[in-house]
Amino acid sequence: MRRAVYPGSFDPLTNGHLDVIGRAARLFDEVIVAVAVNSAKTGLFSYEERVALIEASLGGMPNVRVERFDGLLVHFVRRSGAQVVVRGLRAISDFEFEFQMALMNRKLDDTIETMFLMPKEEYTYLSSRIVKEIAKLGGAIAAFVPPAVEQALHARFDGNATPL
Amino acid sequence: MRRAVYPGSFDPLTNGHLDVIGRAARLFDEVIVAVAVNSAKTGLFSYEERVALIEASLGGMPNVRVERFDGLLVHFVRRSGAQVVVRGLRAISDFEFEFQMALMNRKLDDTIETMFLMPKEEYTYLSSRIVKEIAKLGGAIAAFVPPAVEQALHARFDGNATPL
Amino acid sequence: MRRAVYPGSFDPLTNGHLDVIGRAARLFDEVIVAVAVNSAKTGLFSYEERVALIEASLGGMPNVRVERFDGLLVHFVRRSGAQVVVRGLRAISDFEFEFQMALMNRKLDDTIETMFLMPKEEYTYLSSRIVKEIAKLGGAIAAFVPPAVEQALHARFDGNATPL
Amino acid sequence: MRRAVYPGSFDPLTNGHLDVIGRAARLFDEVIVAVAVNSAKTGLFSYEERVALIEASLGGMPNVRVERFDGLLVHFVRRSGAQVVVRGLRAISDFEFEFQMALMNRKLDDTIETMFLMPKEEYTYLSSRIVKEIAKLGGAIAAFVPPAVEQALHARFDGNATPL
Amino acid sequence: MRRAVYPGSFDPLTNGHLDVIGRAARLFDEVIVAVAVNSAKTGLFSYEERVALIEASLGGMPNVRVERFDGLLVHFVRRSGAQVVVRGLRAISDFEFEFQMALMNRKLDDTIETMFLMPKEEYTYLSSRIVKEIAKLGGAIAAFVPPAVEQALHARFDGNATPL
Amino acid sequence: MRRAVYPGSFDPLTNGHLDVIGRAARLFDEVIVAVAVNSAKTGLFSYEERVALIEASLGGMPNVRVERFDGLLVHFVRRSGAQVVVRGLRAISDFEFEFQMALMNRKLDDTIETMFLMPKEEYTYLSSRIVKEIAKLGGAIAAFVPPAVEQALHARFDGNATPL
Repeated sequence: MRRAVYPGSFDPLTNGHLDVIGRAARLFDEVIVAVAVNSAKTGLFSYEERVALIEASLGGMPNVRVERFDGLLVHFVRRSGAQVVVRGLRAISDFEFEFQMALMNRKLDDTIETMFLMPKEEYTYLSSRIVKEIAKLGGAIAAFVPPAVEQALHARFDGNATPL
Repeated sequence: MRRAVYPGSFDPLTNGHLDVIGRAARLFDEVIVAVAVNSAKTGLFSYEERVALIEASLGGMPNVRVERFDGLLVHFVRRSGAQVVVRGLRAISDFEFEFQMALMNRKLDDTIETMFLMPKEEYTYLSSRIVKEIAKLGGAIAAFVPPAVEQALHARFDGNATPL
Repeated sequence: MRRAVYPGSFDPLTNGHLDVIGRAARLFDEVIVAVAVNSAKTGLFSYEERVALIEASLGGMPNVRVERFDGLLVHFVRRSGAQVVVRGLRAISDFEFEFQMALMNRKLDDTIETMFLMPKEEYTYLSSRIVKEIAKLGGAIAAFVPPAVEQALHARFDGNATPL
Repeated sequence: MRRAVYPGSFDPLTNGHLDVIGRAARLFDEVIVAVAVNSAKTGLFSYEERVALIEASLGGMPNVRVERFDGLLVHFVRRSGAQVVVRGLRAISDFEFEFQMALMNRKLDDTIETMFLMPKEEYTYLSSRIVKEIAKLGGAIAAFVPPAVEQALHARFDGNATPL
Repeated sequence: MRRAVYPGSFDPLTNGHLDVIGRAARLFDEVIVAVAVNSAKTGLFSYEERVALIEASLGGMPNVRVERFDGLLVHFVRRSGAQVVVRGLRAISDFEFEFQMALMNRKLDDTIETMFLMPKEEYTYLSSRIVKEIAKLGGAIAAFVPPAVEQALHARFDGNATPL
Repeated sequence: MRRAVYPGSFDPLTNGHLDVIGRAARLFDEVIVAVAVNSAKTGLFSYEERVALIEASLGGMPNVRVERFDGLLVHFVRRSGAQVVVRGLRAISDFEFEFQMALMNRKLDDTIETMFLMPKEEYTYLSSRIVKEIAKLGGAIAAFVPPAVEQALHARFDGNATPL
């Protein structure tokens, strides 16, 4: 049984995240999407909302489940019985930060491997931050996020959206 | 009639910005310097001050005008009848962020092109942030910003400047 | 009359090049695709073949023409009555080399501007070198090059293609 | 049964390669080290020598085997019944090249995933090229390659080593 | 007498900082560790605490002393009678920021040179920020910081550490 | 007595090299410009010519001398009684290669430090390769190389220079 953890804040889930989850789900027996609790305070969505949005978007991936995660990632991975951390790599700046985290995590627990997957190239420009910015400014986001997330973003920003 | 938009927060205008404006003004019939309103709250200068400082520094560029800009950039560009967004590229980190923005803007409206120009090499180390930091600490900034901006920065920081 | 030069070795033309040519053709009154002669000796296709393949692929772009180019690029641009050099930017390594060339060209003639355009994101992985490699190894290249180039690559590599 | 392919020219195998092979062997049921034949002509070691050096260094990894590989990588992966290509990522320049190859391979066959692993940080400066250079100049290489490779490099360069 | 300044916020000192200080101390007659005062407000440790932690960790480096530093770095360097600013370079993102600062400082005072040293490769993933994050989440930090800093971080985070 | 080695192939010396030599000469008691012999075969200038061109351009730097260098750099540095290797850093690609070399050299001899200096920003686009290319194509190179090198390049390329 090979189990992988895909950690993040997912505030909110984008199509890029979903693409990486799908790739990981084909490579491992089980994938745990680990939603970081500790960054919730400054997030747009609460921890519970972020989890609900992921679960609403995972149709057709029976070997994926969502869990909360606080404290050190390596502790969570060990407790989960997983052997691998999965991360998406989109750009050079990702690369540097991801490498620093992966090296540090290896230092903290060298039985845990970090592996990197590439999302579809059309998702390389996507980030939760940029999607929130566009939604806030009244832009169309249907191409960037799953339907449940699109709806939630519209609900959140309905009041102060810029009319086109 | 080819019209380009050069967007930014310009808090405040630097010689690097001015250099890119000049290059764009030679390539297009009209250049609109689009000052982002929405980042004004946390800025050093108000939207009106930033516009005034740009206008005071544009001497000899009759085909350049300054406009306020809020909401999505692509909406502003379309409303302005422009076809091109101009951005200055100085460094790798610029490159990544700029590419992400340009790809996203293309997704939002693929009739708008983004083009990149290089400022003079002596301006590659310049940014509004670093100029403000130097002014605040009492350093000489005459080489980095137009005279109107130098004066405005001195006025702003006169109280807490570090004596040399 | 604004005229741009798009220089390269084009050995051979890819869909990425064609995409950049189309973007430039919409921004300028005339675009000259300048095929570098001096790198011809080690190329897969001769100078004449490379020009012919470009001309065969330019359908529907009346304001684009192809010219040979040897010597310094800035001399060619000046002789052509052009004001701008257009380059495609795909990746960080491009960025560094392109910046070095653009700064050097500015030093050699500062009346000539270099501007950078981004090809479609699906072409960011494309290069003449990689397309030649795939064609040589018997891979399908129809998605990467115009039909005339596909045919020419097949003709060139028919003998030593790896059977699938 | 999950099977991964780790392709390369391995001219010769370094400790960095060996480290990545070990990490992959822990993640997959079977790992095939795929030695590229076509780059053999300009290599220091022949295809047969490179395979022999890898096999001599794989002690204790029963689920790893070495195979020759020519033609397109995706064809080899498919014929091998593997689902994943494993690549080591050491540096930014690796990253760019690897991404280009991975995107192209996905275009050629999107059922094959590429995943990236990080070698131990002390191997980030290692490459076959640099090891060969040091061996040629008479430097100590025991820390960089497995014993069999060290011996083979010494045998190869014994005549023209620079005396210390 | 050659004197170098090694500036930073050191909130808190890591083994990577200490490694760079040691390298500089072997190259120069005197090294001044210059602790930036102005970033103190948002720091975890006060200016006095940060200085004390550095002094407690400098055992065996008689030619190193710690000083407070506010205002412009170049003014401090000049007042100190130093000729060189020493900076550690770990990663690409460091590189960009450091180059921008060094070029700006050269503009402000071109008699002052900036030189870059590489910390030990095992410290390339270290930063004050990441060490604080790990300490806060209850991870082991003995490998990353000197004993005095480890103790101070434990004292600071004892209340809210996540139980393993 | 602090002695630094500045190694390179210098085929030929550029103003960027000269700038770095001057900076090093102000930081150390003695600087040895170490001209690599082993890359001479494919160079434009012979080892003797490259040394002569450097010596002809060092006016006013009494503490700099030129030496030949073959074999491993660390062996040369140790034999020379030097403690430091000086390298110029211009760009990201420099950075990666230089880091790999520096880490490897540290592995081979950890008593030798590598330090990096930045040339003047107007020399960041300069390289021996690009200067040779321009000279060969008939461009003006007086701004890029010392007079002796300019003369030597003209002499070398007089036959096949492109007429302007």
